[in-house]
Amino acid sequence: MVVNNALSLIEGDLRDLETGLLSVIRSDVSDATDICVHLAQAGGKRLRPALCFFGAYGGNNKDQVMKVAIALEIIHMATLVHDDVIDQASTRRGVPTVNTLWGPHRAVLSGDFLFARAFSLIASAGLTEVILKLSDVVSSLCEGELIQEHDLFNCNQHEEDYFNRVGKKTADFIAASCQLGALTAGFPAERVLSLRQYGYALGMAFQITDDILDVTATTQQLGKPTGNDLKQGNLTLPVIHALKASPRGDELRAIITSRDLSTERLEQCLSIVREGVSVEYSYERVNHFLKQARDFLPTDLDSEVHTALAAVAEFIGFRKY
Amino acid sequence: MVVNNALSLIEGDLRDLETGLLSVIRSDVSDATDICVHLAQAGGKRLRPALCFFGAYGGNNKDQVMKVAIALEIIHMATLVHDDVIDQASTRRGVPTVNTLWGPHRAVLSGDFLFARAFSLIASAGLTEVILKLSDVVSSLCEGELIQEHDLFNCNQHEEDYFNRVGKKTADFIAASCQLGALTAGFPAERVLSLRQYGYALGMAFQITDDILDVTATTQQLGKPTGNDLKQGNLTLPVIHALKASPRGDELRAIITSRDLSTERLEQCLSIVREGVSVEYSYERVNHFLKQARDFLPTDLDSEVHTALAAVAEFIGFRKY
Repeated sequence: MVVNNALSLIEGDLRDLETGLLSVIRSDVSDATDICVHLAQAGGKRLRPALCFFGAYGGNNKDQVMKVAIALEIIHMATLVHDDVIDQASTRRGVPTVNTLWGPHRAVLSGDFLFARAFSLIASAGLTEVILKLSDVVSSLCEGELIQEHDLFNCNQHEEDYFNRVGKKTADFIAASCQLGALTAGFPAERVLSLRQYGYALGMAFQITDDILDVTATTQQLGKPTGNDLKQGNLTLPVIHALKASPRGDELRAIITSRDLSTERLEQCLSIVREGVSVEYSYERVNHFLKQARDFLPTDLDSEVHTALAAVAEFIGFRKY
Repeated sequence: MVVNNALSLIEGDLRDLETGLLSVIRSDVSDATDICVHLAQAGGKRLRPALCFFGAYGGNNKDQVMKVAIALEIIHMATLVHDDVIDQASTRRGVPTVNTLWGPHRAVLSGDFLFARAFSLIASAGLTEVILKLSDVVSSLCEGELIQEHDLFNCNQHEEDYFNRVGKKTADFIAASCQLGALTAGFPAERVLSLRQYGYALGMAFQITDDILDVTATTQQLGKPTGNDLKQGNLTLPVIHALKASPRGDELRAIITSRDLSTERLEQCLSIVREGVSVEYSYERVNHFLKQARDFLPTDLDSEVHTALAAVAEFIGFRKY
């Protein structure tokens, strides 16, 4: 598979990342260690560190780059554990969440602990510019989530509202992952910027795909219930599109506005979204962003990295879970 | 009042702090701004910034010191908003909490947002050493809270367990507030360390007083229900002492171990703790730490600051809410 070939380029880095992660999150307090090790071992795509390694490939400061990659993944873990508290999710990737196993209190605290450890790691490496970027990523992410909370069940929102919030919630973080890899490895500003733009477009495509899968994939594929976002009132691109484009748009609107999304009514909504062109339309937007991502790839990239990053973009468009 | 005289020394700084706080937490996202402004205006003693200003008094880098003071208060606000989610508290200082007004989701997110803004502020000022210290403070604080969660309703804990967790949860942060003021103002390492030690002892005294008041003060004085900690299973010094020293220790233990602290049974526990020598004993510990704090005050401090910091210590011992 193309993406596996791509990943082979940074295989060693990804292996070292796992060891590094475990050592950074270790604490004298056994609950902190237990929770964080659970999170680290619950898996994940390691997309942000991978993009950081690709951005840094062929450059300098390998040790610093590793620290940045670890911090990116730890911050991601922190946001996930807080997300799961917020959504009261019982599983993620098929594994019980921290709030299920240790309760929401400890989930909130361990998220804060992880944020702090990530900043501590980067501060101890003296990478002040990276801290500034990472803290801006976290602010932006929280702002995106706050907008999402504000717009729950709001059927009058537009595609632009969705794209704005996905930019803040997801794309900005993916963009920073590429950018900080290249920056830390000492590449020129122009390449750093292009990689950031690649990452931003990739992040948009990534989130839209996630949102499509919420509607189309099975519970087993997702590792969480199908239609979970919709059930919580989070209206994603396929749903926003269907509200306008589907002949059954009014029916969909009525159910969502009632805020009663019992299993049967949720299923009814999902079938309205699935039966029309809204999923197809959303995939068109994915492809638009993926083309943009490929176009942003710097032409002077090492050809292996260029191929790898193009393959990552391709993978995002094809993933089924 | 002595402490008012002390505060007059940094009156201007504390006024500027309020303006600075509001400008740093402002966001394009209205919910983020609304929540953070609510938090900033809900009051508070501004103890951490005040200690930072005292530590910096007579030194250099006034602008940088202000940023550190703002960051200290923002981090404190972030921990309080997360604490209130964890405790499901409906009021703090008599004002409705963020989780009451905006729900727990937005409370978690706004706490994360505040952490990020604080780190961003310090990173943009280039104060890498301060970030390192602040992120360690947050890790330590989370560890302290995790230990507390772990020991809820555990009647077999010892005073040392309590002191260890209070050190992590509270004293370390107060210590850092003094330390970072002096450090940022460019004072020599020896003074920075002494002020840190003063702050640590002060912080221990502060938390013990807080824990005594949970048992002895009225709901009106506290702005939250009397015995709230005990109700949650958080056993503080007076309770831990009463479990061993009170002739009704077994009765107290039985109620706590049952985890059923209905209003009547909670009142029963509180009266057991109050009727013996445990409150008096706890005040002795407070006085012990306050003496330690005063002894740590650097002898070469500006005499006005010396007087002020001694007055702060005195105030901590006398406060009734």
